[in-house]
Amino acid sequence: MNEPQLRQELLSLDLLPVSEITTLLEEAETFSYGKSWRGETEQFVANLFFEPSTRTRYSFEVAEKKLGLEVLSFDAKHSSVQKGETLLDTVKTFEAIGVEAVVIRHPENEYYHDLREHVSIPIINAGDGSGHHPTQSLLDLLTIQQEFGQFAGLTVVIAGDLRHSRVARSNARALKRLGADVRIAGPAEWMAGFTDEYDHLPFDEALGQADVMMLLRIQHERHGGGMRWSKEEYHRQYGLTLERETRMKKEAIILHPGPVNRDVELASELVEAKRSRIFKQMKNGVAVRQAVLKRALTR
Amino acid sequence: MNEPQLRQELLSLDLLPVSEITTLLEEAETFSYGKSWRGETEQFVANLFFEPSTRTRYSFEVAEKKLGLEVLSFDAKHSSVQKGETLLDTVKTFEAIGVEAVVIRHPENEYYHDLREHVSIPIINAGDGSGHHPTQSLLDLLTIQQEFGQFAGLTVVIAGDLRHSRVARSNARALKRLGADVRIAGPAEWMAGFTDEYDHLPFDEALGQADVMMLLRIQHERHGGGMRWSKEEYHRQYGLTLERETRMKKEAIILHPGPVNRDVELASELVEAKRSRIFKQMKNGVAVRQAVLKRALTR
Amino acid sequence: MNEPQLRQELLSLDLLPVSEITTLLEEAETFSYGKSWRGETEQFVANLFFEPSTRTRYSFEVAEKKLGLEVLSFDAKHSSVQKGETLLDTVKTFEAIGVEAVVIRHPENEYYHDLREHVSIPIINAGDGSGHHPTQSLLDLLTIQQEFGQFAGLTVVIAGDLRHSRVARSNARALKRLGADVRIAGPAEWMAGFTDEYDHLPFDEALGQADVMMLLRIQHERHGGGMRWSKEEYHRQYGLTLERETRMKKEAIILHPGPVNRDVELASELVEAKRSRIFKQMKNGVAVRQAVLKRALTR
Repeated sequence: MNEPQLRQELLSLDLLPVSEITTLLEEAETFSYGKSWRGETEQFVANLFFEPSTRTRYSFEVAEKKLGLEVLSFDAKHSSVQKGETLLDTVKTFEAIGVEAVVIRHPENEYYHDLREHVSIPIINAGDGSGHHPTQSLLDLLTIQQEFGQFAGLTVVIAGDLRHSRVARSNARALKRLGADVRIAGPAEWMAGFTDEYDHLPFDEALGQADVMMLLRIQHERHGGGMRWSKEEYHRQYGLTLERETRMKKEAIILHPGPVNRDVELASELVEAKRSRIFKQMKNGVAVRQAVLKRALTR
Repeated sequence: MNEPQLRQELLSLDLLPVSEITTLLEEAETFSYGKSWRGETEQFVANLFFEPSTRTRYSFEVAEKKLGLEVLSFDAKHSSVQKGETLLDTVKTFEAIGVEAVVIRHPENEYYHDLREHVSIPIINAGDGSGHHPTQSLLDLLTIQQEFGQFAGLTVVIAGDLRHSRVARSNARALKRLGADVRIAGPAEWMAGFTDEYDHLPFDEALGQADVMMLLRIQHERHGGGMRWSKEEYHRQYGLTLERETRMKKEAIILHPGPVNRDVELASELVEAKRSRIFKQMKNGVAVRQAVLKRALTR
Repeated sequence: MNEPQLRQELLSLDLLPVSEITTLLEEAETFSYGKSWRGETEQFVANLFFEPSTRTRYSFEVAEKKLGLEVLSFDAKHSSVQKGETLLDTVKTFEAIGVEAVVIRHPENEYYHDLREHVSIPIINAGDGSGHHPTQSLLDLLTIQQEFGQFAGLTVVIAGDLRHSRVARSNARALKRLGADVRIAGPAEWMAGFTDEYDHLPFDEALGQADVMMLLRIQHERHGGGMRWSKEEYHRQYGLTLERETRMKKEAIILHPGPVNRDVELASELVEAKRSRIFKQMKNGVAVRQAVLKRALTR
């Protein structure tokens, strides 16, 4: 891939230099304070979601409308995808009718790999299979930065269902590049692909060190659903219980990308706990997406 | 429930004092004459429809757009509801991303009961199961008021499928509170829950007394579909036939919430009859929803 | 049908005099150069798509938004159609809530036949079964006119799946009325209904004469899917192969309404060939629909 920054696409944080991540976070921060920005002319964007989504889909839509963009919400079920049309031809259709950026969530990892060679409008990746989810990563980073002012010296624990998750991997990598100390926690068999680079600590030990407990959703829908623990058993062994929460550092915060499996990854009451930043994350999602869209649409 | 009026939510007409119903009808009346009102800043509302709807859904959308609101149309089938997310977490997500009111239709009776304790944005009930449907009630009331100027002294006959319908019950109650004389008509077994409070008259006797014939839709989809009459038989016994229409009072009007089962509740030709206000009801639905939304969004 | 032009509906090009087609093309041409036009007041249109569509649906939506219209996107699956509501009652609902034009795609041929007698807002036909598709025809005509400046003297070959296709027939007829010389090519059994009026030439002979090769999509979804050739076999016998393309006239262009069955109707590489106007067609689709909507909404 050559010169991704020129086309202002956003596929994975791994492709962005730290300086550009920092710039995006600064821009997002101003949007989170209510900054308003609108392009000079009427511009169309299309949201192409091939997988269910609430948070990502609607926060993109809010971000787009706050920027004054015209939004086309593509619905694969009622489209020519039903007649066998490919993703490429679908995107090229939107390009032809005047759309200036596409936001895509698709179940296939790196769906954008060939696609980006054939279209000239920027692709904003809203999640590719178990691949990347750069706007989710950015909103996590923004939330941490707002809390602590910096990444250096922070201990971030990523806990739970990391299995082959490139989302988790590019999150971990971005945090590391920004100066944070990343540890992982959770069932050993869900740490595959991470233990070479990151310390795998027992849950309770990790918990005691964390400035940020980043709990990941158990993605039953991606792994065939089987889990060798009951929900109660998992919660007791690897969940953030009410009792465990009392042993966290005084200023430590809880993050979760949502949707939460209540009483599994964390106790239901903790979703709205004082140290939870789960709703702050959603709110920041809008600001981050405004920054990403502005970057995609200005040249 | 405490101080529902402060939060400007709208759950059921039963919770509103007569004075507030009257105020809403006055406001709706001015909207029906083309009054325009827009909030000072950009505001987002989300429409969360968990059941099929044409009239209610799109008249809310027209009302919202006439008020200059940004509309998010939530589609449960393509949302995180598919991953098990609850209604509460869905609404809290919309609250977090900046939505200032939610319009909800949901199959569960009083779905809003716990929900309203956990969110701080107003909920506008667009129908809960066989529960309430306050904007439908308001548009019925507005249509009657426009026709007759007042409720006192009017005889309103509610006819057809009243079975355990809280929609019908809160309609009846609101009419009674406003001074109308309410009678019921239709098959005895569909009058359950009403005969204590309202006179159940033979269809033809009720018809002769009615200033307003409010025909209710037979809700096959809510009752397992079984009906012990054929459609023709039902129409002959309890439907508004062409012949029966000629025996109505000179100034009497016909209401029906739609969608109409043509040639069942009433003869197909009567949908567009001179005394039918069925399309007027739909038109008034927009004005009523503008009034309700304005009330929800101004403090 | 009387005075279709007064109601500014658009059902089939067959119902328009040549002068009106010419006027629409002129108007569309100015829109394609970026002309902007907006109505004086806020106007609502509803898009009612009862069949999957990407190109037509979203280019109508882009056209509508460019004209500053408020758009309601009707979704039959989540509407009262699920409770048995008819197309007529659905359209009358939209009329009642203030919609000023409806764009409809429906699987039934001439679904608009009775409908138009009962509604007073213009219907814009976005495709009726295997019937007409006037905005598709207009965008084909606009693309040809932009290329050659006129229709007189041009040889247009319509090739492929013409079976009983009124789309193809009204396209052919409009081209003929505008002065073009129309030939047909493809499997003999797919030419039914055309051979009386148009010369059926062997594919390679037609190809050599064509200024415009208008390839039609094989509509597996309309014909039960059976085809007596494999895709490779069909492509070899009746497809525009890479080799055949080299034998086209120097200035000849390729049209296809999309979605393309790549490597069946034409070689995949030819979709983006120098002489392909397939993406130009899509782009013109927006301009044509702006012209049609403007015509429907101004009196």
